[in-house]
Amino acid sequence: MIGRLNHVAIAVRDLSAAAALYRDTLGASVSEAVPQPDHGVTTVFVHLPNTKIEFLEPLGADSPIMKFLERNPDGGIHHICYEVDDILAARDQLKANGARVLGSGEPKIGAHGKPVLFLHPKDFNGTLVELEQA
Amino acid sequence: MIGRLNHVAIAVRDLSAAAALYRDTLGASVSEAVPQPDHGVTTVFVHLPNTKIEFLEPLGADSPIMKFLERNPDGGIHHICYEVDDILAARDQLKANGARVLGSGEPKIGAHGKPVLFLHPKDFNGTLVELEQA
Repeated sequence: MIGRLNHVAIAVRDLSAAAALYRDTLGASVSEAVPQPDHGVTTVFVHLPNTKIEFLEPLGADSPIMKFLERNPDGGIHHICYEVDDILAARDQLKANGARVLGSGEPKIGAHGKPVLFLHPKDFNGTLVELEQA
Repeated sequence: MIGRLNHVAIAVRDLSAAAALYRDTLGASVSEAVPQPDHGVTTVFVHLPNTKIEFLEPLGADSPIMKFLERNPDGGIHHICYEVDDILAARDQLKANGARVLGSGEPKIGAHGKPVLFLHPKDFNGTLVELEQA
């Protein structure tokens, strides 16, 4: 069911510092910062040859990553995202296997303009898993 | 400097259960379990089309991931590994930029038989970063 690793998302307090670190110290290709008000984050993408790192900085008072940063003041890996061909088929199969889908269970349009769902970390080795329709 | 994302490592308490979850529920290609006594872990690799997930289960009484699992009883993402062409050149450049290399600072032979180093999470957005010579 799962295909490529679309990205690894890292929550950070200071997006500019994280972007500069990966651009200048690690020598990677780093995008501009893009505010995503619908998702309560500002994003920067690090383009690696085979996948992406997505930096997330809180945007707005009720950003969904604020609690994570309170628990992890240095930042940290927030989630990993796998691509699937058909997100509704994937969701239904996962639910039939007992996995919990977060929120309403209906896909939302993610930061890349594609339908996404999040799966419960307790069902996936303590790891928040995003599924994105490829 | 950094190239491909070689793998994302997830620490787990029950390697068989994690392997079955990714094989049966997520439909991924999963390797056999391989004890790595030099590293204090048993590993399973999930082969995605563009990169790998590495499951780590503690092996032996002084496994380096035991404390992590005490803090994260459900498991969790332990580190990410970037490939570099020349690990000594990468290390020296990172140290010149003020980044801290863990341990002796000399590369060890990692689980794939290649030289690896680990970088301090506090210098990389709360994320433990492994570098592996490609």
